[in-house]
Amino acid sequence: MIKVTIWNENQHEKTSEEVRAVHPNGIHGTLKSFLEKDEELMIRTATLDDPECGLTQEVLDDTDVLIWWGHMAHEKVPDEVAERVQKAVLDGMGAVFLHSAHHSKPFRRLMGTSCNLEWRETNDRERIWITAPSSPIVKGVNARYFELEAEETYGERFDIPEPDRLIMIGWYNGGEVFRSGCCFNRGNGKIFYFQPGHETFRTFYHPTVQLIINNAVHWAANERPTVKGNTDSCLHSERIEPMGN
Amino acid sequence: MIKVTIWNENQHEKTSEEVRAVHPNGIHGTLKSFLEKDEELMIRTATLDDPECGLTQEVLDDTDVLIWWGHMAHEKVPDEVAERVQKAVLDGMGAVFLHSAHHSKPFRRLMGTSCNLEWRETNDRERIWITAPSSPIVKGVNARYFELEAEETYGERFDIPEPDRLIMIGWYNGGEVFRSGCCFNRGNGKIFYFQPGHETFRTFYHPTVQLIINNAVHWAANERPTVKGNTDSCLHSERIEPMGN
Amino acid sequence: MIKVTIWNENQHEKTSEEVRAVHPNGIHGTLKSFLEKDEELMIRTATLDDPECGLTQEVLDDTDVLIWWGHMAHEKVPDEVAERVQKAVLDGMGAVFLHSAHHSKPFRRLMGTSCNLEWRETNDRERIWITAPSSPIVKGVNARYFELEAEETYGERFDIPEPDRLIMIGWYNGGEVFRSGCCFNRGNGKIFYFQPGHETFRTFYHPTVQLIINNAVHWAANERPTVKGNTDSCLHSERIEPMGN
Amino acid sequence: MIKVTIWNENQHEKTSEEVRAVHPNGIHGTLKSFLEKDEELMIRTATLDDPECGLTQEVLDDTDVLIWWGHMAHEKVPDEVAERVQKAVLDGMGAVFLHSAHHSKPFRRLMGTSCNLEWRETNDRERIWITAPSSPIVKGVNARYFELEAEETYGERFDIPEPDRLIMIGWYNGGEVFRSGCCFNRGNGKIFYFQPGHETFRTFYHPTVQLIINNAVHWAANERPTVKGNTDSCLHSERIEPMGN
Repeated sequence: MIKVTIWNENQHEKTSEEVRAVHPNGIHGTLKSFLEKDEELMIRTATLDDPECGLTQEVLDDTDVLIWWGHMAHEKVPDEVAERVQKAVLDGMGAVFLHSAHHSKPFRRLMGTSCNLEWRETNDRERIWITAPSSPIVKGVNARYFELEAEETYGERFDIPEPDRLIMIGWYNGGEVFRSGCCFNRGNGKIFYFQPGHETFRTFYHPTVQLIINNAVHWAANERPTVKGNTDSCLHSERIEPMGN
Repeated sequence: MIKVTIWNENQHEKTSEEVRAVHPNGIHGTLKSFLEKDEELMIRTATLDDPECGLTQEVLDDTDVLIWWGHMAHEKVPDEVAERVQKAVLDGMGAVFLHSAHHSKPFRRLMGTSCNLEWRETNDRERIWITAPSSPIVKGVNARYFELEAEETYGERFDIPEPDRLIMIGWYNGGEVFRSGCCFNRGNGKIFYFQPGHETFRTFYHPTVQLIINNAVHWAANERPTVKGNTDSCLHSERIEPMGN
Repeated sequence: MIKVTIWNENQHEKTSEEVRAVHPNGIHGTLKSFLEKDEELMIRTATLDDPECGLTQEVLDDTDVLIWWGHMAHEKVPDEVAERVQKAVLDGMGAVFLHSAHHSKPFRRLMGTSCNLEWRETNDRERIWITAPSSPIVKGVNARYFELEAEETYGERFDIPEPDRLIMIGWYNGGEVFRSGCCFNRGNGKIFYFQPGHETFRTFYHPTVQLIINNAVHWAANERPTVKGNTDSCLHSERIEPMGN
Repeated sequence: MIKVTIWNENQHEKTSEEVRAVHPNGIHGTLKSFLEKDEELMIRTATLDDPECGLTQEVLDDTDVLIWWGHMAHEKVPDEVAERVQKAVLDGMGAVFLHSAHHSKPFRRLMGTSCNLEWRETNDRERIWITAPSSPIVKGVNARYFELEAEETYGERFDIPEPDRLIMIGWYNGGEVFRSGCCFNRGNGKIFYFQPGHETFRTFYHPTVQLIINNAVHWAANERPTVKGNTDSCLHSERIEPMGN
């Protein structure tokens, strides 16, 4: 059983009828609706308006994989919540960051870079190419690429550390490219960044997008090491006794 | 001409006669004394007690490579200074983090991990092996390893992202190993972490240690790109115009 | 069910009583004896003296993970067998190379480098440190390090490409260090190099060594992609039809 | 002074008037014509029809950086020449592989993978995006991308090991993407793969392409380590003496 917490900012849904039409139960609701078909997953959701953003220490301790969607209210996530999420990932919780979560506080903290990119909203068609077909994240895709009829354009340069593994590169008919699927190991945690998912498009209803997010949850779920890997504190290392020779 | 700023916490020097005996002009003074023999370097120093830690935006804008030594007072560096240093590195400034700077705020921000390690102060002998002999950072070392008669023991697990290039691994006679020389690209900046340099030992007087730090400064000095690589802001990406097809 | 083929050169066993005493059924027999306790594995063995080294195309097509031990007779493996193994890995077969297999033809072909190292046979004690405690390869080790009372010393520099993930570093009481556990992705295949396993020592009877090899087999087993990842030929790429825009 | 050897297959030039029209002195002549304007370079050329392909041990020993262009006659390069080139790179010679050299024997030997890709000749327009603007290889490009009016389409999946640094990604108006600029460290040598350069197009006359190749030569030129990094032989490692403790 993999315990999944889907975190969604849930702000566009409150102000935009267009977004509500696409995601009547919020983006978290859309994500939940296809993930809950997987019987190995136990799913909980949380949003910005919940107390402590719904991400108390108890919730994180009970989460194997956290999915994150955010956009217009990144700065409203308190620093202590962002730090708590970062620490949970370093301790072994998996994390899947979707689309505009590239600029979320936890993702930027984990990467250490600006995570900036270039972007444009013009309903570009996107074709996403698989660069690592043997990755479990693309298991079942069974094609060299898949297409999204309309997505927000994200373009390079994407300011991230070199991914530990690059899984996908996106092509846009407007002329851009983007590293659309990136794997990172950080501390004891596994992180997947996946570019598709603009709030006004039906991207999360696309079967291949659903398959990849589902796969990524399984990939990121990680038995946490029983020997602490020195991530128990961000401020103190452990003193070791001399071991003789 | 490479503009170098040596930053030293300079706290042990105020309270410990033992440290003062080794570093009569502070650790920054010791570092400066051998680096200033290199005529291609122009050197400035800064310490924790200086206003804004001596690291104003003006100083960072005028710095090609920043060297950092800190230990007991990491938390006294204000967050805004740490963020300014992080941003300068992402914008293209080189950075060399020495010894206990593994836990400095700027290094931890740039790595995104806890940067924890294990340690012991027992005057262990250390032998540092070169794993990447073609790196410019070990140019002139001309040996498979070099030795330090006494160093503080640093042991794995060192909680860092996989280095972009691993240059050295340290062996201690007490039984530990450590990734002692690690290169990272972050944003437009180059980062080198180098493990030797405990405050009570004469490590920074060792000719090979001096050579490596000198080499690392040249390696990290980086012509900053004239087209901004999307690191000009940590909060906003750049909107791009459609380019047609 | 994971189909495992254990390949052992099986030459020392024919000429050295010392080796026979440690491995009465050959090194392949010793490896088989603990792996066959894992009911998810189906195990076959093959040796140098078998026709085509026991590694026909049929055998490789029926193998999920190949384990390789070789030392004194690397050059007796025909080039066509080495190429067949390389191609099978690129097509998605997992591979675990043990100890002196660092110089085997298939490993050198897959790495592209000399795979040279330094070595000494003096019964050094080895302590192997875990640098990536969250890797499934060290699941259950539950310690920061483990020790081998006597192993052949392998020392850096180990001339390999930067591993995709470094899992372990070995320390020897004679003064050396070695990257003892290294993961590589090549083509669609996963490769693990593991340093312990000298023929005259009881290394493969060590419970932690057995656990790690067992874990590595599970890690390397890989559902082969159903869309060919362009590895079906080493000489020709695939022509693609224009896809319009 | 950097000693550069430009190797060109020089076969299309003998059979195709179209190619001769673009490269009246051969592709090697075209490359030489712009590189020789750089006074720090000393340039020699060699082709398939020269004795030993013009790549004797003496020539390689006198070469700091080798540039390679080949396509229709990869298999005519003798294995011993390919091995000699591979070994020279591992010993510290830089190498720049252009366009269809992805399938050359030395490149495939150094990568260990099939180096397959997908391709199409339809005069697609290519836009090459810079993903690592701080790399010295793109110094002076001063733009987020540059364009080629017509190039042969190369598409993912490109079966290479994860590059040590990814510098550029190409976009084609026919719908493909490609990792167009890739850096690799192998042994003591630095390798750059650069995708543009189809024989019937004027790609090598494009000022940005010329700048990048020129930069890559400087980047790949590498002072060879004076301590042999264990690459002096592909078959034997070095025995080390015990060093006491």
